[in-house]
Amino acid sequence: MLIDLRSDTVTQPTQTMRTAMANATVGDDVYGDDPTVNQLEKLAAELLGKEAALFVPSGTFGNQLAIMTHTTRGNEVLVGDDCHILMHEVGAAAVLSGVQIRTFPVLDDGVDVEKLALMLRGEDIHFPDTGLICMENAQSSGKTVPLANMEAVYTLAQSQNIPVHIDGARIFNAALALGVDVKEIAAQGDSVNVCLSKGLCAPVGSLLLGTEIFIKKARKNRKLMGGGLRQAGILAAAGIISLTEMISRLEEDHRNARYLATRLEEIDSCSVLRNRLDINMVFFTLPESVITESALIEGLLKKNIKISGTENGEYRFVTNHGVNSDDIDWVIESMKTLVSHYS
Amino acid sequence: MLIDLRSDTVTQPTQTMRTAMANATVGDDVYGDDPTVNQLEKLAAELLGKEAALFVPSGTFGNQLAIMTHTTRGNEVLVGDDCHILMHEVGAAAVLSGVQIRTFPVLDDGVDVEKLALMLRGEDIHFPDTGLICMENAQSSGKTVPLANMEAVYTLAQSQNIPVHIDGARIFNAALALGVDVKEIAAQGDSVNVCLSKGLCAPVGSLLLGTEIFIKKARKNRKLMGGGLRQAGILAAAGIISLTEMISRLEEDHRNARYLATRLEEIDSCSVLRNRLDINMVFFTLPESVITESALIEGLLKKNIKISGTENGEYRFVTNHGVNSDDIDWVIESMKTLVSHYS
Amino acid sequence: MLIDLRSDTVTQPTQTMRTAMANATVGDDVYGDDPTVNQLEKLAAELLGKEAALFVPSGTFGNQLAIMTHTTRGNEVLVGDDCHILMHEVGAAAVLSGVQIRTFPVLDDGVDVEKLALMLRGEDIHFPDTGLICMENAQSSGKTVPLANMEAVYTLAQSQNIPVHIDGARIFNAALALGVDVKEIAAQGDSVNVCLSKGLCAPVGSLLLGTEIFIKKARKNRKLMGGGLRQAGILAAAGIISLTEMISRLEEDHRNARYLATRLEEIDSCSVLRNRLDINMVFFTLPESVITESALIEGLLKKNIKISGTENGEYRFVTNHGVNSDDIDWVIESMKTLVSHYS
Amino acid sequence: MLIDLRSDTVTQPTQTMRTAMANATVGDDVYGDDPTVNQLEKLAAELLGKEAALFVPSGTFGNQLAIMTHTTRGNEVLVGDDCHILMHEVGAAAVLSGVQIRTFPVLDDGVDVEKLALMLRGEDIHFPDTGLICMENAQSSGKTVPLANMEAVYTLAQSQNIPVHIDGARIFNAALALGVDVKEIAAQGDSVNVCLSKGLCAPVGSLLLGTEIFIKKARKNRKLMGGGLRQAGILAAAGIISLTEMISRLEEDHRNARYLATRLEEIDSCSVLRNRLDINMVFFTLPESVITESALIEGLLKKNIKISGTENGEYRFVTNHGVNSDDIDWVIESMKTLVSHYS
Repeated sequence: MLIDLRSDTVTQPTQTMRTAMANATVGDDVYGDDPTVNQLEKLAAELLGKEAALFVPSGTFGNQLAIMTHTTRGNEVLVGDDCHILMHEVGAAAVLSGVQIRTFPVLDDGVDVEKLALMLRGEDIHFPDTGLICMENAQSSGKTVPLANMEAVYTLAQSQNIPVHIDGARIFNAALALGVDVKEIAAQGDSVNVCLSKGLCAPVGSLLLGTEIFIKKARKNRKLMGGGLRQAGILAAAGIISLTEMISRLEEDHRNARYLATRLEEIDSCSVLRNRLDINMVFFTLPESVITESALIEGLLKKNIKISGTENGEYRFVTNHGVNSDDIDWVIESMKTLVSHYS
Repeated sequence: MLIDLRSDTVTQPTQTMRTAMANATVGDDVYGDDPTVNQLEKLAAELLGKEAALFVPSGTFGNQLAIMTHTTRGNEVLVGDDCHILMHEVGAAAVLSGVQIRTFPVLDDGVDVEKLALMLRGEDIHFPDTGLICMENAQSSGKTVPLANMEAVYTLAQSQNIPVHIDGARIFNAALALGVDVKEIAAQGDSVNVCLSKGLCAPVGSLLLGTEIFIKKARKNRKLMGGGLRQAGILAAAGIISLTEMISRLEEDHRNARYLATRLEEIDSCSVLRNRLDINMVFFTLPESVITESALIEGLLKKNIKISGTENGEYRFVTNHGVNSDDIDWVIESMKTLVSHYS
Repeated sequence: MLIDLRSDTVTQPTQTMRTAMANATVGDDVYGDDPTVNQLEKLAAELLGKEAALFVPSGTFGNQLAIMTHTTRGNEVLVGDDCHILMHEVGAAAVLSGVQIRTFPVLDDGVDVEKLALMLRGEDIHFPDTGLICMENAQSSGKTVPLANMEAVYTLAQSQNIPVHIDGARIFNAALALGVDVKEIAAQGDSVNVCLSKGLCAPVGSLLLGTEIFIKKARKNRKLMGGGLRQAGILAAAGIISLTEMISRLEEDHRNARYLATRLEEIDSCSVLRNRLDINMVFFTLPESVITESALIEGLLKKNIKISGTENGEYRFVTNHGVNSDDIDWVIESMKTLVSHYS
Repeated sequence: MLIDLRSDTVTQPTQTMRTAMANATVGDDVYGDDPTVNQLEKLAAELLGKEAALFVPSGTFGNQLAIMTHTTRGNEVLVGDDCHILMHEVGAAAVLSGVQIRTFPVLDDGVDVEKLALMLRGEDIHFPDTGLICMENAQSSGKTVPLANMEAVYTLAQSQNIPVHIDGARIFNAALALGVDVKEIAAQGDSVNVCLSKGLCAPVGSLLLGTEIFIKKARKNRKLMGGGLRQAGILAAAGIISLTEMISRLEEDHRNARYLATRLEEIDSCSVLRNRLDINMVFFTLPESVITESALIEGLLKKNIKISGTENGEYRFVTNHGVNSDDIDWVIESMKTLVSHYS
């Protein structure tokens, strides 16, 4: 059995999910006829404290749908400088929505709100309108954003009538790490995107949440983007398990991440970015002089361990449902062998 | 149990599909790791006679992905004047791909190829480049396009190095109606989109097919459009059943459509558009003076029959896996009662 | 001296215009500081009976700016099937505004309003919203649209809250041909685009007109499209002459067009499209067997006559300020010589 | 007579320009028939050391046209974090070209090339392709970029086959400040945009320059964007004067800027940003406690001096053809009076 540390997107559906999918009552969701989708959307809305929810095929889809629905062509969208929307969504916002992205710095303690305030566009014939601010919690960097910082951003945005979207792909991880109810995070924006298919183990799907009016508009834009699915209740059945049974298990991923970090530090020259160890992601550097990237990737693969290559010089190992502490011990043992061998 | 004549998209997954989905071996398809998706794509490519295939969330997604992948911003895309891409995809091609749609007439015996030839743009500073021609078979109108006509269009397009995309949402219905191998239809274009979720009963999903180079490019564009799914093998498992076990059952839908047409003609003033009765769709008119649209829709709903409202003054009843000849008898009986009552 | 029949866009500025340009009081129009631009915009608004006007670099710019300003991303724009926006603006509407174009037929007596009414989109998750209807008068075909027909279209549009834009590149020609005040045509739409640089002889520029709110929004979109000019009063000075002194001269172009038509008919096999002889354009066919297109173009060029190649098999000769009746006689004489020589 | 310090875009055409415009030989430039435009384009190409040039209506138009022509839909365009394209072009790149903008920091000594190198996108399904790098010289900040830094950026870009566009709206100011031939700056990119209507005093117009192939493609895109002008030779005639007679006068603007800076420093609490005093722009801060922005703007206006409001808390005064050293003395005297009055 492989130990897959590339992402928590690799998680397999549980047996409970498989049974639920096999037995799901379904209908044509384009007509609004799928009772299981409707149940999932209702459940998610309650859990996140929003009026309405919409099932979408992926996290990228959810974020891009939010952007399309909040903005008009030519708006400027402010996002964190290392966020998923900018870095890992293939430049979609410009293509799909015709909006300009501009970035604000996200520091260790969150967004510099004063600086953000200066970035909001006033009336000037040279300026696009600021159409949306996107927050991300937990962030792609592995860090969470403190609730107070989100509140400050949202207060600023509301004072200027600018909507806020929260990319909450790992919002349940964030809530756990921050020790708050997920509703409190979701309350810091007009819309929020939540993934079922990462630590929560559903095979496919995310949810976009917001007001009823917003979700109604998003439903039509979802069709435009090709995300109107038919008997999606099959997938929604797994999503319901994600939200009802799997959230509590994220604690295990976080504990495993901390354990992995501690053990990685046993390896010479391996430097864990401890200030970004909030959730289930461990970022670290390991100099090419100790072991090259390709030697590490290929060496671990021979030991049934899958990892991704570096980005910006950093490795990212992600704990997930398929990884337990014994697996972590095996990873560390394997790395030690490889490093000693290579040196 | 409802008799649902609104579309064949309402079909429920079969028990075999449910079992296959529950037991599917899956992986993260964004990494190319889902064996069931890979199997489905290979199977589809063989069946359609194309080099490669890509699983996508919907038929609209597949068509729009094809347009995005074939064209560059500012191209002109020629489509039939009543096709799904123009009429039922929420204007997506302009939004997602920045292309201009221009329509050619599709007549009873297919496209007027001489007229189409005049529409191809030459070199002129006022003209966009013709970037793509889209054919549809079977058409949204219920008609098939003769193979010879498709060949003539494709020959013309190739002579000008213009790619052809085939919207084959119901290509297996078309092949059945035309009495040809589906490969022969698929061979009349560079790419083809095929739906698993209509008469073939899969819950979710379509396939885009083309050359390996085209599909590789489409795979990235699929990510941009938010259609990169994770453990999509759950859905692909049903799709495999669609392609291996369900194609032969389309004959039943066609037979039922013809039976439904004949029986509809028993109703006074009900005029079936017999020249468009090629597949599983029956188009007919029924004057408002005989029975109003809302009276018919609501009256039939009380008898557990679901139908859509008219488009351009025409009703469309679609036979599908959930509709047998007894159901049709019940539909006709119910309509007769309603009409007599209403008159 | 060349006789240029390719278009009325080839007209040279008059001496009066040159003097006016040399002496124009100017300012930075991006700041709203150019008095001559302001004067031209005010004059045009009064002449056309609209609240406000905006100077733009070209007719294409004006039309596309109108589309961008009236619509939101994803709207459907209904246009005549042979209009300039569809045929001769490089597919810009999809690129710049992300809107889908769909065409209605324009018949000899104008738009089939009943058919147009059926094309307006209702509420349906598959449908884009109808965001704009574009009329053209005079049309690129050389025909005018009767005022009553424009009224019928506008009444229909207003009943559905759909704005109407009029491409009035040659609206003064249309007013002359229809025998109405240009205000009456302009009143049949929410916005209108008017060219100064065709029969009216200004070197550069068009005007977009509409309500003050619309023009304010268009002013910002003009900047986005790169059309915010600085000391544009230089050009506006010529435009003022166009509107105050040149409109009356269009009668001469129309008379010359009719004279040219009559004389062309002296040439064997030359068939003038008399039903489209409303303004200063003469469309005709001349079989390749009589003289090839390239032989005609090159033969006439040797006699100092410039013409364009055919479009859809038709030649278009456009009378303009640089063409008088003697020139026409020379054109006919030259053609007769070429044809006899070639036969 | 007003002293206008808002921008050098406010400059008036000279008498020589007015005479040249009045006497210009012109033709229809959409057909390539305008000899004066052709002459200007040839002259500019020689002066900048590029194969070909294209006259465009504005600097924003030229930059956006470059972006449209270099990129394909969905590319990522890297730009400096304070550049005109990002900050002052109304978000156009996303609307017109569907590209995502991402910013690199520009420091006092230019671009951090190592950091820029890390931003170039490799092969990854989550990444857009890096389609273009935009440099700006002189920058909107008032600073120039050292030639060696531009070379380093261009070398990096070329090593990855990424084109470089130079926004040279004030490239002649940059060349003067850097003490290099303008050709040397223009050589550090594949395309360059040059404004005629700023310090060079032409009323309207910019030039986009690059290879012949690039300019041919840009010419068509210019038509799409509505920038195909007719008898543009009127404007080009002034542009020829700009390039032949006005470049040398920029030294005066630079000298005046330095004089203005020195004199501003006589005012209490007025802090000139001396590290950005490379060209004809003086940036400074003046606390609201000394005089409010509106009091300064309105007070100076009463003394016939026009200034713009602050951006990011900074005032920008721009010297230009209409401002001499006496004017500067009057500005300083007026400011001193206002400040003392206000305190």
